[in-house]
Amino acid sequence: PQEFLQTVFGSNDQSTLSIESTGKRFCQYYAALVGDEKLEFLLTLSKKYGANQDSVVQVSQSLVAAQERGEAILLKVEERLRHTLIPRYQHLFSQIGRIEGGVKFLVDLRADILTFMGSSTVETDIAYVRTMNNVLRDLLSLWFSVGLLSLQRITWESPCDIVQKISDYEAVHPIRNWSDLKRRVGPYRRCFVFTHTSMPREPVVVLHTALTNDISTNIHSIIQKPGFRTPEANIIPAPDESDNTVDDLDETEDPNKITTAVFYSITSTQRGLQGVDLGNYLIKKVVRSLQAEFPRIYQFSSMSPIPGFRDWLVTEINRELHLKDIGELKEPWTNILKEDDIPSLDVFKDHDNQDPLEIFKKIVQSNNWLTSPETVKPLLMRLCARYLYLEKRRNYALNPVANFHLQNGAVLWRLNWMADTSVRGLVKSCGMMVNYRYFLDQTEENSKKYLEEYVIVASQQIMDLANSCTEKE
Amino acid sequence: PQEFLQTVFGSNDQSTLSIESTGKRFCQYYAALVGDEKLEFLLTLSKKYGANQDSVVQVSQSLVAAQERGEAILLKVEERLRHTLIPRYQHLFSQIGRIEGGVKFLVDLRADILTFMGSSTVETDIAYVRTMNNVLRDLLSLWFSVGLLSLQRITWESPCDIVQKISDYEAVHPIRNWSDLKRRVGPYRRCFVFTHTSMPREPVVVLHTALTNDISTNIHSIIQKPGFRTPEANIIPAPDESDNTVDDLDETEDPNKITTAVFYSITSTQRGLQGVDLGNYLIKKVVRSLQAEFPRIYQFSSMSPIPGFRDWLVTEINRELHLKDIGELKEPWTNILKEDDIPSLDVFKDHDNQDPLEIFKKIVQSNNWLTSPETVKPLLMRLCARYLYLEKRRNYALNPVANFHLQNGAVLWRLNWMADTSVRGLVKSCGMMVNYRYFLDQTEENSKKYLEEYVIVASQQIMDLANSCTEKE
Amino acid sequence: PQEFLQTVFGSNDQSTLSIESTGKRFCQYYAALVGDEKLEFLLTLSKKYGANQDSVVQVSQSLVAAQERGEAILLKVEERLRHTLIPRYQHLFSQIGRIEGGVKFLVDLRADILTFMGSSTVETDIAYVRTMNNVLRDLLSLWFSVGLLSLQRITWESPCDIVQKISDYEAVHPIRNWSDLKRRVGPYRRCFVFTHTSMPREPVVVLHTALTNDISTNIHSIIQKPGFRTPEANIIPAPDESDNTVDDLDETEDPNKITTAVFYSITSTQRGLQGVDLGNYLIKKVVRSLQAEFPRIYQFSSMSPIPGFRDWLVTEINRELHLKDIGELKEPWTNILKEDDIPSLDVFKDHDNQDPLEIFKKIVQSNNWLTSPETVKPLLMRLCARYLYLEKRRNYALNPVANFHLQNGAVLWRLNWMADTSVRGLVKSCGMMVNYRYFLDQTEENSKKYLEEYVIVASQQIMDLANSCTEKE
Amino acid sequence: PQEFLQTVFGSNDQSTLSIESTGKRFCQYYAALVGDEKLEFLLTLSKKYGANQDSVVQVSQSLVAAQERGEAILLKVEERLRHTLIPRYQHLFSQIGRIEGGVKFLVDLRADILTFMGSSTVETDIAYVRTMNNVLRDLLSLWFSVGLLSLQRITWESPCDIVQKISDYEAVHPIRNWSDLKRRVGPYRRCFVFTHTSMPREPVVVLHTALTNDISTNIHSIIQKPGFRTPEANIIPAPDESDNTVDDLDETEDPNKITTAVFYSITSTQRGLQGVDLGNYLIKKVVRSLQAEFPRIYQFSSMSPIPGFRDWLVTEINRELHLKDIGELKEPWTNILKEDDIPSLDVFKDHDNQDPLEIFKKIVQSNNWLTSPETVKPLLMRLCARYLYLEKRRNYALNPVANFHLQNGAVLWRLNWMADTSVRGLVKSCGMMVNYRYFLDQTEENSKKYLEEYVIVASQQIMDLANSCTEKE
Repeated sequence: PQEFLQTVFGSNDQSTLSIESTGKRFCQYYAALVGDEKLEFLLTLSKKYGANQDSVVQVSQSLVAAQERGEAILLKVEERLRHTLIPRYQHLFSQIGRIEGGVKFLVDLRADILTFMGSSTVETDIAYVRTMNNVLRDLLSLWFSVGLLSLQRITWESPCDIVQKISDYEAVHPIRNWSDLKRRVGPYRRCFVFTHTSMPREPVVVLHTALTNDISTNIHSIIQKPGFRTPEANIIPAPDESDNTVDDLDETEDPNKITTAVFYSITSTQRGLQGVDLGNYLIKKVVRSLQAEFPRIYQFSSMSPIPGFRDWLVTEINRELHLKDIGELKEPWTNILKEDDIPSLDVFKDHDNQDPLEIFKKIVQSNNWLTSPETVKPLLMRLCARYLYLEKRRNYALNPVANFHLQNGAVLWRLNWMADTSVRGLVKSCGMMVNYRYFLDQTEENSKKYLEEYVIVASQQIMDLANSCTEKE
Repeated sequence: PQEFLQTVFGSNDQSTLSIESTGKRFCQYYAALVGDEKLEFLLTLSKKYGANQDSVVQVSQSLVAAQERGEAILLKVEERLRHTLIPRYQHLFSQIGRIEGGVKFLVDLRADILTFMGSSTVETDIAYVRTMNNVLRDLLSLWFSVGLLSLQRITWESPCDIVQKISDYEAVHPIRNWSDLKRRVGPYRRCFVFTHTSMPREPVVVLHTALTNDISTNIHSIIQKPGFRTPEANIIPAPDESDNTVDDLDETEDPNKITTAVFYSITSTQRGLQGVDLGNYLIKKVVRSLQAEFPRIYQFSSMSPIPGFRDWLVTEINRELHLKDIGELKEPWTNILKEDDIPSLDVFKDHDNQDPLEIFKKIVQSNNWLTSPETVKPLLMRLCARYLYLEKRRNYALNPVANFHLQNGAVLWRLNWMADTSVRGLVKSCGMMVNYRYFLDQTEENSKKYLEEYVIVASQQIMDLANSCTEKE
Repeated sequence: PQEFLQTVFGSNDQSTLSIESTGKRFCQYYAALVGDEKLEFLLTLSKKYGANQDSVVQVSQSLVAAQERGEAILLKVEERLRHTLIPRYQHLFSQIGRIEGGVKFLVDLRADILTFMGSSTVETDIAYVRTMNNVLRDLLSLWFSVGLLSLQRITWESPCDIVQKISDYEAVHPIRNWSDLKRRVGPYRRCFVFTHTSMPREPVVVLHTALTNDISTNIHSIIQKPGFRTPEANIIPAPDESDNTVDDLDETEDPNKITTAVFYSITSTQRGLQGVDLGNYLIKKVVRSLQAEFPRIYQFSSMSPIPGFRDWLVTEINRELHLKDIGELKEPWTNILKEDDIPSLDVFKDHDNQDPLEIFKKIVQSNNWLTSPETVKPLLMRLCARYLYLEKRRNYALNPVANFHLQNGAVLWRLNWMADTSVRGLVKSCGMMVNYRYFLDQTEENSKKYLEEYVIVASQQIMDLANSCTEKE
Repeated sequence: PQEFLQTVFGSNDQSTLSIESTGKRFCQYYAALVGDEKLEFLLTLSKKYGANQDSVVQVSQSLVAAQERGEAILLKVEERLRHTLIPRYQHLFSQIGRIEGGVKFLVDLRADILTFMGSSTVETDIAYVRTMNNVLRDLLSLWFSVGLLSLQRITWESPCDIVQKISDYEAVHPIRNWSDLKRRVGPYRRCFVFTHTSMPREPVVVLHTALTNDISTNIHSIIQKPGFRTPEANIIPAPDESDNTVDDLDETEDPNKITTAVFYSITSTQRGLQGVDLGNYLIKKVVRSLQAEFPRIYQFSSMSPIPGFRDWLVTEINRELHLKDIGELKEPWTNILKEDDIPSLDVFKDHDNQDPLEIFKKIVQSNNWLTSPETVKPLLMRLCARYLYLEKRRNYALNPVANFHLQNGAVLWRLNWMADTSVRGLVKSCGMMVNYRYFLDQTEENSKKYLEEYVIVASQQIMDLANSCTEKE
């Protein structure tokens, strides 16, 4: 890679003509690398063709010295410092962005960089690559600004290749077959995507919305039944029920029935765009588009998964068990189980004298609580509310989906029991799902509060549940 | 403006939601300002909401100190420095770029900044605003990268409003009426534009091309006659000839006749995009498009004006006259007139003993040389070649059109006598025009030589003419 | 032509493959004919390649004979007769319709046939050509059925070539220049056209509509002022007033102001489509389109010229003068002038004892009544109402514009004095124009009454004026 | 229906306004009818609202009488007769064609009529309905003329709903799943359709083409393998082989490999367009489109099924067996089996003394010949060539697929053994398929010969095989 990169950067060529061919050569060279060669290449690039350290130090010294020489001089040195700090590869990247297919190349390159950063353990390497990552993120943020994205509705009349991608990209509630897919883009559904001028035919973010007359309490009413459904009509459908006939796939929408939009799946398809906030804009654009189409619509809410809840719960249980083992935990149930919960766990007991926490851990891991779900409902609901509302990371919500919607200004609104009884739903979040509700006149304020003051706006249900975790009994 | 800007920047709000409305407010506020208010506003913005000077100095000191603490630390401080150097308004600008109409707003804002920089005399003010100008230029450079521009051919079947803009924007060879306009977009002509996703229906750069069978020697054969013309057919047409009948406007192109593309007008329509190189890309894209359309095409050349030649010449004459006045100039003709030129100027003499340089100045300013053009042809051609080939500014060609084409890698190829005999052409360049020729296999190399080594590649004709200026007699 | 046509029809070729090339040859052959050759060719075609007369007679006899042989037999012979009556050229024409450009060829061919029919005096020739004309009209009627026409709104953003055609085709209120044209397709105006799949870029019918807040009383408020005007604002503007500045051409429409659509010009551009009713459909489609766009719109009316009124009036005067000459007219004024009119004509008298009818004829022909318009207003209004309401041809309105709108179900609503004071308007209709108003809930019924019972629905104003013509004094 | 039809035709309304609403009412009324009600309705319509029989007879008499009264008179009566013969429902139908969705309504109406004609046994009823059928066919023929059809290529980037229809309509070689479908519209394949302006999103004819380097000898190489295949590469693949991996579905086409287009499936999707020749035009348009895309293409051929061959063969065998039974057939093998064939059938014998013809019938019906295919190959090939080349119906080829391609001017070119070994292929045609080859410079002439002189142009292979059937041994 060294020799190659020398041919790329060797000349001081500023001509855009030559740089274009250089950029193409760079892309082809990189594309031909395999496995660790890519990482090695990225490392060399970030180390040898970043900013010139000596110059940076030297200009920094000049700047410190310039303080006394008046504002105009100081500003000039500042400008020089700014220029000196630009890594040499930044110019290359911005040139590549101009080539056909270049933006997509950089998106994929950044995905590789993120992989590298996640896997390397050499601190200096990571530091170099992090700078490159930041440069790329800033470039991509500018290129993926909303004006250059176009909102597109996907229907059964959309191009097959794009519809197929919608299917391939759906990870939250996997699409089983083409009838299923047809339903997701059919009546009483809206599938919107952002596409970018530089990456035609490639949905960058996908948002699935159901049009209903009330905020859904479970996902099955949305993904297993075509057409219009009242939320009540579909309590706890068996997740494995056979495919519906598609007879009613051609049902005509009645706009007068539609009062509510439920965002039930949002997917960013490009790993290389991590940190470039697009989903938020997509939701806002979709809200406006729906308001224009349906004058009677007034409720907007997500129907969101709670990935990580069960893992978190098991970790917490293990922690307590460990504390107990080493005798640190005096009152065994403070954090997870309460006095009242213990009798109810009896039905799951394997043998006498079994530690209730052990029982609880076991049924959570095995999903055996499904044999008597109502018994553990209060317990699991309470713990989940705590997970969503109280557990933090750097002052923001620990759960990434919560963090996303709260940043957007949504309210943590309703926790739904038995809302996703698919295997996936049970394994991720003990079958629960949550609605983040968008009160349009409050999102801006909520967003501000959350971002600046770390305040989560939640409904009474959530607060009651969460508070009951910490109450003294 | 101070209070307003406080409401914009006062909060530390990072929420994209609130920033969007802030951006809109900013645009509306600025749009409502008039005259000097705008300049005052820009100054406040650049001074109060740039980078924090104290922090910059402080982090620079940290960086100097970090040298000893290992690469990883140094890189971290470097990253912090980079971040500290970002002016606060940069974030605002990039947010505005996301708003509908925001990119156009910033383009126009930058035009105002350029005006300010040209008119202010306060050094510190200029220093602040220059930083803001650079930030905007870099942002706009990224947004106007080629992938986001689309090449469009304008014909008589294009939308009326865009065709009208083509007419309005044409400054080099003004379009007189709709028949004239129809001809410029008709057979044997190609009018290509770049448009940008964020500024629909607005041509950003316009390139007019004539399709011929040889490189034109004058502009009249292109703009006054519709259809296909051999270059010889139109030597020195009277510039005021009445409009051609448009009977042959519907002539069908014969692709087999077309071997040559002559770029006879290129216009950047947005002052705020100054320094963002688009014309170069447009020419390259058009070359590719023409090669695909016409397999027999093999010659590419401009037919370019020489703005500034007469002004430069008069200035040079005045300088010599002044030197002569103060007795500094011993041999009177060294730089402008040669011994051989003097007798030929006799025909323009008003009275005896008139200084030949005075005579020359007078006929150049009055265009009176037209009464006997062949007499002064060698003299004017020689001086014009010198102007184009030898006169420099910061090592690059003084003439801006020359500089543009030479950067692109074109050759300074042929100076044409009586090539634009319109009043405009006479006043700007004594009726001469020049072809910059694009030899496709050499443009990259030529461009490099020019940009890195300041070498102008010129034809024998140009070099002979220019050298004859400096030869000892 | 005979030999050529033999090569066309000579074979009994049914193959669509060969017929296609035959059709093309036919089109090329015909296109190359000049002047009378075309007419001769059409005559030969219609005579030699129509239905076989002998066969027709023979099958007719069979049919008469088949009466006794039962229905099934009769129907079979009927079917044979139908087939025998199809002219041989009909098959050729329908094949030509399948060729690219073929439909346009047939439209133009029919225009030639109509010319021929208007100029020939040989009865048999006309009879043959009339059959051919009918065949073509029926074919074109089917091809120009509405499903194959597309409604298109023309704006300043429409393709230049089409906008130019809109200008070229406008005969009722000629368009003077591009500013004028921009206004006709600008705000508070709607220009709609029908285009046909087989004739791309060619408007077949053009309808100009003004959007106002009341039904216009004169044409000048529509065609001379851009933007929104209340009808009162523009009483009798001088027809020759200089061009308005186009500053307000970019005025934004305020949909809330718009309550009324005034159809002020409708043009069928293809003579060969005479008798194919398209204007009616266009008006109906436009009404629907406007209702969808402007919820507050509730008045629809034409602003129509009255071509032929002055010619008709002069003819009527001449007739009376002739009757008087030959002593047939006892009471001189019954039909045109009334007792009361005579004194008012005195102001226009050249000399004493001048016959009032002669005076009237003279001022009508010279437009001299303009020197004292109010004097003759009652007289001219009365006569014009009579012309529109009472004068008939085959029981329908004599005036073709009236007949068009009445067939569509409009009401003869208001006669407007000084509504078109251009030279054209004075010469055609003494400056008057008429509104045919469309009451949407009555058009169907009105149309029926007019078509079946020859009843013209008119307003009180019209009826009063018209009746006053016939009242005994 | 009688009362309803009276409201439709009762008035003599000629107004297009009222007719439009009448037409809509008609469509709604008919759509609401079920089962036999439709037939009854059609019968009433055809009987009561056809041409007026009495008038027809009367005008026919006038015409016979007019013979003596000169051409002009005769032509006038002829015109009147033509007019009288137009059934009243024809006007209604042409009005319905103008309504949105009207053309599709008429296409479906005609499908119902064709069903009626196939099922009724009352001669008079059929006669009436036949007239209505003819009227509709002629109207639809005009509306489906090529200028109003648009050629569209279907790819994986086409709208899903249309791609799905391509799958649903494919009857010749059924499409098993979406991978299979993706392949049929993928590289080295071309799927073209005609769509009609009045029936958007509805493919009217579908043509599947494979792009290869030689004329295929079997269907499996086309429909089971994606991408480019030499014909030899795929001799007799097992018909039930599992689905190919779709890894190579994204293979890029190499235009230089493509010399041959094989039309392997053509489908008319609308029964109501029976007799309206569209497939022929589609093939011709596709040929032109392919020639433009692939300069090296020079061979065009179908790969066609032979529906009806086995049925015909069994019928022929049964006939001979019957003749033998009743002693009419002296030499048992003349028509089907020859002396030489008999020993070869021995391997299929169940028991001694079994009649060879019985053996042959049995193995044909059971497909048991597959156990020793080479044994019967000469026999089946010979008989199939005879079926295609010699068996006629009204002088044209009995086999409808043969008739279609021969009308188009193709040559009966090559019979392929084991070309479609799917169950379907075995049952229809004992696994054989045939290539009809299009020699572009001869199609016109071939078509003419076939249509006018009933001559089938066939290759030597076909003629040799067919002649061997009739040769005396």
